[in-house]
Amino acid sequence: MILEIAQIEIKEGTQSAFERGVARSHELFLRAKGFLGVELQRSVEFPGRYRLLVRWNSLQDHTITFRNSADFAVWRSNVQEYFAAPPTVEHHEAVNIE
Amino acid sequence: MILEIAQIEIKEGTQSAFERGVARSHELFLRAKGFLGVELQRSVEFPGRYRLLVRWNSLQDHTITFRNSADFAVWRSNVQEYFAAPPTVEHHEAVNIE
Repeated sequence: MILEIAQIEIKEGTQSAFERGVARSHELFLRAKGFLGVELQRSVEFPGRYRLLVRWNSLQDHTITFRNSADFAVWRSNVQEYFAAPPTVEHHEAVNIE
Repeated sequence: MILEIAQIEIKEGTQSAFERGVARSHELFLRAKGFLGVELQRSVEFPGRYRLLVRWNSLQDHTITFRNSADFAVWRSNVQEYFAAPPTVEHHEAVNIE
């Protein structure tokens, strides 16, 4: 299982529009191959900074399959006008700490 | 509910020791006031970079109660020798995208 964390900085005053754009895109994630879950998290310390956490079955489900899908283009068109900069994206693997 | 994300860069070659230090600290989190869950996530792109995701009932449960507890000092003593730099910590509030 892969955790993608995308850090997204948006333009001042576009919070509501950006959040609506993500909500409108929720169904695209739900139907993506290997998609396991998504959370939109707003920074307490930095207004205008968000982190989108997306859980995927495999790295390729995000970096190859989703990014090359028609739905990726729709996702970007729903939100990218609000971006203050290109998002930074990293992937993670869980470490067992039980 | 608050999501804390701590970005932790560790010294080369200390991955196993650091991960064991976090595992040893798991019980400290479990008994912290307002603690709701923890994940240790290792970056795929940057070896030596981790993100610790901790869910708290309130911001104060982390920034006041936990940080001023004896358990916080034990947590730090379990892991800080492996830090390459002081961790960066941010807090987040979930946005409803349903």
